[in-house]
Amino acid sequence: MLINIKYSTKVVYDMYRSRPQKELDESVLQFLSSGTSDLQIVSYDILGTEAHVIMLNEIGILNIDQLKKILKELEAILKDPDSLVIKGEDIHEAIEIHLIEKLGLNLGGRIQVGRSRNDQVATDIRMKARDDLNNLSEDLSNLINCLLRKSEENVDSIMPLYTHLQQAQIGNLSQYLLSYSEELFRCVENLSLAYKHVNKSPLGSGPVGGSIVNLNRYGTAKLLGFEGLIVNSIDATTSRDFIVETISALALLMITVSRMCEDLIIWSSQEFGFIELDDKYVSTSSAMPQKKNPDPLELTRSKAALIIGNVVTTLTLLKSLPSGYSRDLQELKLIFWNSFNIVTSSLRVLTSIFESIIVRKDVMREAVRSSYATALDIAEQLVITKNIPFRVAHKIVGAIVNFAHSHKIPVNSINQGDLRGLIHEYPSVKAEDIMEILHKTSVENSLQLRSSLGSPNPLDQQELIRVLYAQLEEIKTNIGGRKESLHISLKKLSDLVSNLVSK
Amino acid sequence: MLINIKYSTKVVYDMYRSRPQKELDESVLQFLSSGTSDLQIVSYDILGTEAHVIMLNEIGILNIDQLKKILKELEAILKDPDSLVIKGEDIHEAIEIHLIEKLGLNLGGRIQVGRSRNDQVATDIRMKARDDLNNLSEDLSNLINCLLRKSEENVDSIMPLYTHLQQAQIGNLSQYLLSYSEELFRCVENLSLAYKHVNKSPLGSGPVGGSIVNLNRYGTAKLLGFEGLIVNSIDATTSRDFIVETISALALLMITVSRMCEDLIIWSSQEFGFIELDDKYVSTSSAMPQKKNPDPLELTRSKAALIIGNVVTTLTLLKSLPSGYSRDLQELKLIFWNSFNIVTSSLRVLTSIFESIIVRKDVMREAVRSSYATALDIAEQLVITKNIPFRVAHKIVGAIVNFAHSHKIPVNSINQGDLRGLIHEYPSVKAEDIMEILHKTSVENSLQLRSSLGSPNPLDQQELIRVLYAQLEEIKTNIGGRKESLHISLKKLSDLVSNLVSK
Amino acid sequence: MLINIKYSTKVVYDMYRSRPQKELDESVLQFLSSGTSDLQIVSYDILGTEAHVIMLNEIGILNIDQLKKILKELEAILKDPDSLVIKGEDIHEAIEIHLIEKLGLNLGGRIQVGRSRNDQVATDIRMKARDDLNNLSEDLSNLINCLLRKSEENVDSIMPLYTHLQQAQIGNLSQYLLSYSEELFRCVENLSLAYKHVNKSPLGSGPVGGSIVNLNRYGTAKLLGFEGLIVNSIDATTSRDFIVETISALALLMITVSRMCEDLIIWSSQEFGFIELDDKYVSTSSAMPQKKNPDPLELTRSKAALIIGNVVTTLTLLKSLPSGYSRDLQELKLIFWNSFNIVTSSLRVLTSIFESIIVRKDVMREAVRSSYATALDIAEQLVITKNIPFRVAHKIVGAIVNFAHSHKIPVNSINQGDLRGLIHEYPSVKAEDIMEILHKTSVENSLQLRSSLGSPNPLDQQELIRVLYAQLEEIKTNIGGRKESLHISLKKLSDLVSNLVSK
Amino acid sequence: MLINIKYSTKVVYDMYRSRPQKELDESVLQFLSSGTSDLQIVSYDILGTEAHVIMLNEIGILNIDQLKKILKELEAILKDPDSLVIKGEDIHEAIEIHLIEKLGLNLGGRIQVGRSRNDQVATDIRMKARDDLNNLSEDLSNLINCLLRKSEENVDSIMPLYTHLQQAQIGNLSQYLLSYSEELFRCVENLSLAYKHVNKSPLGSGPVGGSIVNLNRYGTAKLLGFEGLIVNSIDATTSRDFIVETISALALLMITVSRMCEDLIIWSSQEFGFIELDDKYVSTSSAMPQKKNPDPLELTRSKAALIIGNVVTTLTLLKSLPSGYSRDLQELKLIFWNSFNIVTSSLRVLTSIFESIIVRKDVMREAVRSSYATALDIAEQLVITKNIPFRVAHKIVGAIVNFAHSHKIPVNSINQGDLRGLIHEYPSVKAEDIMEILHKTSVENSLQLRSSLGSPNPLDQQELIRVLYAQLEEIKTNIGGRKESLHISLKKLSDLVSNLVSK
Repeated sequence: MLINIKYSTKVVYDMYRSRPQKELDESVLQFLSSGTSDLQIVSYDILGTEAHVIMLNEIGILNIDQLKKILKELEAILKDPDSLVIKGEDIHEAIEIHLIEKLGLNLGGRIQVGRSRNDQVATDIRMKARDDLNNLSEDLSNLINCLLRKSEENVDSIMPLYTHLQQAQIGNLSQYLLSYSEELFRCVENLSLAYKHVNKSPLGSGPVGGSIVNLNRYGTAKLLGFEGLIVNSIDATTSRDFIVETISALALLMITVSRMCEDLIIWSSQEFGFIELDDKYVSTSSAMPQKKNPDPLELTRSKAALIIGNVVTTLTLLKSLPSGYSRDLQELKLIFWNSFNIVTSSLRVLTSIFESIIVRKDVMREAVRSSYATALDIAEQLVITKNIPFRVAHKIVGAIVNFAHSHKIPVNSINQGDLRGLIHEYPSVKAEDIMEILHKTSVENSLQLRSSLGSPNPLDQQELIRVLYAQLEEIKTNIGGRKESLHISLKKLSDLVSNLVSK
Repeated sequence: MLINIKYSTKVVYDMYRSRPQKELDESVLQFLSSGTSDLQIVSYDILGTEAHVIMLNEIGILNIDQLKKILKELEAILKDPDSLVIKGEDIHEAIEIHLIEKLGLNLGGRIQVGRSRNDQVATDIRMKARDDLNNLSEDLSNLINCLLRKSEENVDSIMPLYTHLQQAQIGNLSQYLLSYSEELFRCVENLSLAYKHVNKSPLGSGPVGGSIVNLNRYGTAKLLGFEGLIVNSIDATTSRDFIVETISALALLMITVSRMCEDLIIWSSQEFGFIELDDKYVSTSSAMPQKKNPDPLELTRSKAALIIGNVVTTLTLLKSLPSGYSRDLQELKLIFWNSFNIVTSSLRVLTSIFESIIVRKDVMREAVRSSYATALDIAEQLVITKNIPFRVAHKIVGAIVNFAHSHKIPVNSINQGDLRGLIHEYPSVKAEDIMEILHKTSVENSLQLRSSLGSPNPLDQQELIRVLYAQLEEIKTNIGGRKESLHISLKKLSDLVSNLVSK
Repeated sequence: MLINIKYSTKVVYDMYRSRPQKELDESVLQFLSSGTSDLQIVSYDILGTEAHVIMLNEIGILNIDQLKKILKELEAILKDPDSLVIKGEDIHEAIEIHLIEKLGLNLGGRIQVGRSRNDQVATDIRMKARDDLNNLSEDLSNLINCLLRKSEENVDSIMPLYTHLQQAQIGNLSQYLLSYSEELFRCVENLSLAYKHVNKSPLGSGPVGGSIVNLNRYGTAKLLGFEGLIVNSIDATTSRDFIVETISALALLMITVSRMCEDLIIWSSQEFGFIELDDKYVSTSSAMPQKKNPDPLELTRSKAALIIGNVVTTLTLLKSLPSGYSRDLQELKLIFWNSFNIVTSSLRVLTSIFESIIVRKDVMREAVRSSYATALDIAEQLVITKNIPFRVAHKIVGAIVNFAHSHKIPVNSINQGDLRGLIHEYPSVKAEDIMEILHKTSVENSLQLRSSLGSPNPLDQQELIRVLYAQLEEIKTNIGGRKESLHISLKKLSDLVSNLVSK
Repeated sequence: MLINIKYSTKVVYDMYRSRPQKELDESVLQFLSSGTSDLQIVSYDILGTEAHVIMLNEIGILNIDQLKKILKELEAILKDPDSLVIKGEDIHEAIEIHLIEKLGLNLGGRIQVGRSRNDQVATDIRMKARDDLNNLSEDLSNLINCLLRKSEENVDSIMPLYTHLQQAQIGNLSQYLLSYSEELFRCVENLSLAYKHVNKSPLGSGPVGGSIVNLNRYGTAKLLGFEGLIVNSIDATTSRDFIVETISALALLMITVSRMCEDLIIWSSQEFGFIELDDKYVSTSSAMPQKKNPDPLELTRSKAALIIGNVVTTLTLLKSLPSGYSRDLQELKLIFWNSFNIVTSSLRVLTSIFESIIVRKDVMREAVRSSYATALDIAEQLVITKNIPFRVAHKIVGAIVNFAHSHKIPVNSINQGDLRGLIHEYPSVKAEDIMEILHKTSVENSLQLRSSLGSPNPLDQQELIRVLYAQLEEIKTNIGGRKESLHISLKKLSDLVSNLVSK
């Protein structure tokens, strides 16, 4: 039988301040409040509350009539979030106040039994994080897809490969693009492990040490689509390792992204001139009329610095915190959500840029032609076909390059007499042998000769592209599966609630 | 004689895109735009433009009539910033578009000669930064002032001093508060050097290499209250070292602040119980009715992590950027401004908390009484009055503490027989001498005996407080002087403009 | 048929400097050299070279006689690493010089064909990293094992649970220890994914674009125990994402470790007094004889800051590097290896400390007794047994705590008259009901009542310990499997080499 | 009258462990010990001890005979530091043990009265830091000097200025070099403020709360060359803000250095080809014979990442530490000293590289010639001489560049008919006016026309160089003054000691 609670309106405000005898200072309230940023988790919070009250009904703490009335009000907020006025320190308090105002203290004041803001907010953050992880992983797979397509188009885009920003060997654009995508594949794996750690339910852990209410934690977890629990109630309310893990994975992703930007920025300089950005993706100068600047690439590069900063904030904030919820943790929410936003927008911009990139195959090929990037190919042929020790071949080709450079001629224009002078230290090496190799090595056949696995040899590239497309399909299937699984759970919850509310 | 420019309206939009033949992609525009955050520098930007056009008139580029019309429109925006619609990539573009729409291309299109967004935004950032530095320095001096006042009140608040979070010596709360203020004084000095570096004018440096217009750079600098120039035009447009320097100084400040919070959080635990926060500054639990949590202190502590993250973002973003403006630099603006906001609100909350802090002198004194914190005092007296080598005195007192601890008695309750047993390794040391010292050392006289400069001896403290008040006055005078100097310059500019506009 | 190479001794030194015409400046050589730190990878480098030359023999580049001679010299270094004199910029150069000096240029100069220092060093780093990861994971499982054992011993160590460093609920030490171990389990998973990414072979990728030699990359990978390849030669020589990933995982691990230290440091303060460190693990003061300081815990806590710094260095260094090896990458080696050392020593010290920790069960229980930590238990019982809305129960218990606190009495000593005054706002709530709950709630039964999964209820704890032991066994099996697999591969290589050398 | 202390040898070892009843665990001792790194402060520690004991004599704690004996042993260590065996946890303990072993407990055991390791180590760190700061500032002024000299040589090295790594305006190498030096000048100022904060004495603060011994703190400060005290004993023993401040200043310095490296690396790519490194400063490839890689520049760039990591470690380690010495602080010593070493070696390498850099004036000029970098000059002349609004001039020149680019002609080769087509939107603009400006603008006169202060106009540059040389002289004088002042103080101390010892 229900007690009919009477109460003064004063009770509702400063709802949780049962012991302090003053209201919270207004400026401190403003300092503490996470109300505005919490708007991003209103819907998750309400779903969590729905699951909680359904479970409270199952274990006999709320009767069916109470449950229906509460669900009805929660659904109303879900449909019209603007109806919710932010009161108190956060969204959780605001929703409870809202329910009490709508339903009276006697009913509205019953939703929070067996639950604390500490397990509640952990639940909300995890629910949002799994959606963010799924969406971002999709954006990432879109970028990979774009890179694979562009690789296919650029197997014949011969260009120098660089080490130390110096021309190193002959390669092609395709191989660069594939190397990006391979790093990104590993990033997807990191995000998947983070997802596994994220998608566990902390709900039912109370403020730190659980509850004397016989909560059905597996029940609420299932209603909310979680796969298992964070069991220990201290761990469930204190740990934010999943935030560190996720932001660290995002930072690593952005490192790769920043390196892609750096390559593109350098290649789009006038001096390199290998690529050009579509006019839609360049910015200009207020002063210099001739300018076409790669601003979106630069800004994307700078976003990596933001995420690195966020990694540091997260790690530093958590370091040395004692166990149990501390208010410090509040700051992590916004850091976490902003990190997803930053990375998502960066991935999308970068995908658009790659889609529309203009490749100057002629300029690339010219750069190759005027380079000494066949030097290793020549040396290796001297080893293979002439049985010269590699270290000697290296010395000889180095001397030839030096000679060619100072005489401003291509390496294969050296004459046999000059060559003999260069190799006098190696009397057993025949100048004719070297001349033969010099003459048969060209930009054109250099890539065909390359035969180690994973090289820029076009046949190799095509095979690798095929493999990576298959790998991409697998990833898409996984992400799709995760989304579908969440969708089914939340649809069931939604149907259950609709059913109860409509009856 | 003026050419009467005719133009299609199309010219105005995509105003700077003279070379690219497509508009900027909409989503990229959104990615690039700094419009929203730029609202914080609208007024600085307009002051800068006013100084620029006044100077352009002085050197004959604008006639007086053109100048007046331009100033009139600029003043209109200054009075009603909401009249400005954000168009283009940033506030600078928006203002030029606004003027062209109001005054026509023939007049509105004349303001940007001899100026680029690169020197312009550097000017704006520096103008805002000097205000932010002055205001924050004032907040900091308020906190110092509060600490000095509280020190005066707590010279007699005897408490343990800690090292390794273990009771070390007897001291008082006053000395802790003074140690905070002394660190903060050094922070003020760091901010003052940053101010000196900030308050130099980059205006007139063009996009990177200056202008063929014979700009009067000293003239605009003076109108805007700058003390001197960043001379080299590459340095002026590229360098953001003043941002690094300032945020580094803020991070150091927040380290000190976080340590103050840590002390207070520990001292307000039930187990320490030395201080209590006023009910206005505690937060509670949605679940646990008994709770009074020091949330504002925890949140302030966490803000240090945000600023450390901002240091990292700033350093990482700038590392390895080539010379000349890059769009990466845009990100620094918001990081910079947010850092000021975070630190300012932290300082204010902390000042309020210190103002209202409740000191439990009785609990502190009880903690001292049950401690072994007089151990060093005893050992030092054995040295001074009994001529025992310090290392021997240390050994003896250590043994006494051990005995007392295991027998659960105060150190001065040991009897002479037991004492003899403890010192048998030092046959020349007399038990009576030690007993004498043990009996005459008390919590009460321990602080009076402390005679090294800077110790918690109350007389020493009072003298130090006097010195620090004087130091604080000096600081206030300096900050006041800086503000006054800016005020005078900008008042002159404002008067000049009013004069021109009204004529 | 072999060409008999003659050469001047000059060739050997400055071996790779085939093009530059001056020797490297001595001070720059010192600046560049990684020789000293490379000593940590000598043995890995030699194993890699052995696999490489065996493969060169298989594909016909070296004949069996050449192979045997080379292997013999490599084995000699392996047996006596001190025989190797560091010459040149790094260990790779030093070993090649050594072979040339021993075997002549004609033979020693043949080992490097089809290989570059770029793929070679990547191979070495990965070989060392997988050993380091395995060893560290074992140390981590030892710590977990220790925590589980200590949990078993402390199921009855009743103590307050804290949030905001304020007493929150009643719990036990066991639950804290279990929450640590659960976080550490997740760390193990992160390290396992890193291992998977690390244990792939980059060997055979050349400097950046592979080789025209028809290398058997899968062959060398198998000889060295790698599971698969980093296929793309740009990716293989440029990527250091596995370093970022690993150090990030170590940083997260150290965050957990630092929080364990923080708890222990606070609990071992005189004011808390819950635990005491064994005398073997405390440090003292040169000045204060009474001191027992938890220095090893503090130093371990500080190590987290070192690893966070290493995360930042790693991320910052890689950000914006163009593709292809850059010398910047050299710095990562030492950062990487030091990180393992730091974390390993921290884990070991912490394990020793937990092994020997002295738990003051009486002090803990006393702290619980004098606390208001049963407040939530009381409120929840009012809900469950008296059907009072939780929010009302919260208000009532808050008022009772306040009354008890100001009258310095335990909550269950309040008399019915006073209680009535406190609940006059809720006329329908009966004072007797509350009195009944107050009297039946005690520290003793509070834990027994706690019935949500993952709470400190002792039965729950025991079940969780059982589950976690099983989980630990699984982990140990995995790590053991990884070690065994590496051991088998390298044993095979070693046998093959012995066989060849001895024939 | 002196007591004749007898003691067992056991006393000496575990000297400070007066209370703990077990020795420190061996592995923990190894974990805790800072012995090896402390070797860097042995001499400072001894000087500090000499000053301390001289003062103890002055205030009557040591008699003259005791003083002499102690000083004699200290001098012996100073002369032969290898005679010191590291025992105990650190160098301070090792020295005290050494003295006791040499002089007996009765005399050797007297040095530590009125002093703790906490104030002692703070003194040592500050003494070393002021030397490191002075030396590093000298290295920095050498780099600036080199840059100024190279600027003088390169006033006529015309090259493109870049923004967004895109050709922007015409400038010269001199201006780049000057912009570096101007940033470095500001770094010197930051280091000077750090020096001021460093050079204050903490000696005489005891472990945290001072001493009952009537220490003459100003006396020891003077003997050791400090300018004033860190007065408050908590501040003196706890604060490490001077380390944060210094490492932050070093990080900012390294940011500038990394940007210099980035410019040089890009400019020395084949595609830019503006500069070439002397063969003494390039590294090569083990595989590719043609390579001349700018490894020292890359490695210097990476050092910036190390220092950024050190900033983070320092900030993170200090954040949230409670007041009073904690062992965490020990880690900062090595971080601090390593930071100096890293930056010093970087500055020296960079200075050598600049000294020997080969500037390809012809390549630079050719790059300018083929660029559109005069576009702004043209637009500005249209404004100045033809009174065309800047925004219109910008549009027109943009259209001309576009036309020239797509027709692959220089901008001044456009014919009047085509030009008319491009400007039809501006009927009042005359094609002849534009043609006139196009024809009279050339790479040659562009720099001469540049008339804003701080531009690459050669006359401007020369004036700036003159000013900066004067500024450099001032800096050198300041650093010299600081060194001289320390030298005088320490010479006096040394003379005093010699005098006492020899008597």
